[in-house]
Amino acid sequence: MPTTGKLLVTTDVLTQGIDFLLDQASPRQIGRKAMAVNLSDIAAMGGRATAALVGLVLPQSPSIAEFARELYLGLEEMAGEFGIPIVGGDTNSWPGGLVVSVTVLGERAGAPLLRSGAKLGDAIFITGPCGGSILGRHLNARPRLNEIEQLIGSATLNSCIDISDGLTADLGHILDASGCGAMLDADAIPIHPDAQLLARQSGTSPLHHALTDGEDFELIFTTSEAEAVKLINVPHAIRIGTIVESGLWLRDSTGVTPLQPQGWTHDFTRPNHGQ
Amino acid sequence: MPTTGKLLVTTDVLTQGIDFLLDQASPRQIGRKAMAVNLSDIAAMGGRATAALVGLVLPQSPSIAEFARELYLGLEEMAGEFGIPIVGGDTNSWPGGLVVSVTVLGERAGAPLLRSGAKLGDAIFITGPCGGSILGRHLNARPRLNEIEQLIGSATLNSCIDISDGLTADLGHILDASGCGAMLDADAIPIHPDAQLLARQSGTSPLHHALTDGEDFELIFTTSEAEAVKLINVPHAIRIGTIVESGLWLRDSTGVTPLQPQGWTHDFTRPNHGQ
Repeated sequence: MPTTGKLLVTTDVLTQGIDFLLDQASPRQIGRKAMAVNLSDIAAMGGRATAALVGLVLPQSPSIAEFARELYLGLEEMAGEFGIPIVGGDTNSWPGGLVVSVTVLGERAGAPLLRSGAKLGDAIFITGPCGGSILGRHLNARPRLNEIEQLIGSATLNSCIDISDGLTADLGHILDASGCGAMLDADAIPIHPDAQLLARQSGTSPLHHALTDGEDFELIFTTSEAEAVKLINVPHAIRIGTIVESGLWLRDSTGVTPLQPQGWTHDFTRPNHGQ
Repeated sequence: MPTTGKLLVTTDVLTQGIDFLLDQASPRQIGRKAMAVNLSDIAAMGGRATAALVGLVLPQSPSIAEFARELYLGLEEMAGEFGIPIVGGDTNSWPGGLVVSVTVLGERAGAPLLRSGAKLGDAIFITGPCGGSILGRHLNARPRLNEIEQLIGSATLNSCIDISDGLTADLGHILDASGCGAMLDADAIPIHPDAQLLARQSGTSPLHHALTDGEDFELIFTTSEAEAVKLINVPHAIRIGTIVESGLWLRDSTGVTPLQPQGWTHDFTRPNHGQ
């Protein structure tokens, strides 16, 4: 296929029992998710996805043909929603569990957007509310390809990552790679209704879920203050904090609390946090 | 990464127990093979490989770190022999068996060389001797990237495929895709010494092994007669037959025998066949 701009490529392997459970996800959902996580990686690089390849290792079972058909439909459905063709692949079967390996190609006019580009004083943004994805949203992730295209068209972004491990964990990857810290505004963190729901069961706060739950697939990105101004009227650009010299901090009306970059520990019990 | 020409991409997934046995192949060999089969696919498209990605699913075991290191060294070694960087990937572990998924990107100045391009009257070539790869050569395949580059620089090829299933089986893929047949010259088929060795154990002829054994990773390609002349002094261009209207035939001094496009059946017992 012909390409313009710089070539981007990403690959992610999903395995039964680790990334999905066959009794909790339909093959169609597994297919959609396997494609979505890769498309999300291209979005996080500020790219436009152009094509996908699929490597399948199928368990040997009498009903595997129908299972494989559904799985592939899920892969095609998700790719199709963004107009991306599946241009190749490899299918095997074996006595082991299901493995779905997806590679997505993309392109970008300039240098790829990296997690290492955050600069002191940058504004930190997120594309949408987080937390509680385990209630089902993690199986229906929608990669933020359209959102990143709009954002890039509006301002120059310095760094970006998608949320797979959790808001603070993935922001931590930006901070590690960029050699800086972050101050988050508790009141500004967008909390998903699922985080509210889950908090009632878990006994931790909705904010805790928003900050630490994984697989939201929202994008975290940073821009200079001058560029941040250009995003004021752009949907999906929710300012949540500022890049500082070091550490990871949460600020609310009561003061400043240090956060673990890899997410809050589960014994975090401070009540009334940012609701 | 910047690209010139048309982008090529291929992905192959190797699984424990199907593509390799852990008690018969070292992790280094598995890594080399997983990379080699993908590079071979790029060679078969007439391309130049440019970058690779690796998706690993590792069994959980106490010695897995050393195993993974060796596996990755094998992947890097094979890629490195052709100056190809491994630019990304994904590594997971699970209670199941080993899965190695490799994606290789490549490029080609013109349209990709396909198995569907063979034309009536084309000369059929192979890049080297076949048969008996199971004696160990299949674990040490050398993709014919340099050979195809030289061939393409010398003549216009019409179709190409690499031998993974076997000479007649893979030639059969060209014939199916191109809607034609082939007449092979028994005396011209290059027989690997391993095929001679294996024939002593198997009781079938070395030629049978050369025609039907898989995983040789030589390339089969076709050119017009006019272009074939340009390959007379090119090493690795061994003429083995001619594209005809239909069927798959083997010609020797005693006459013409029909071949099964998917390889000879194992009860083939005609003696003195083309040695």
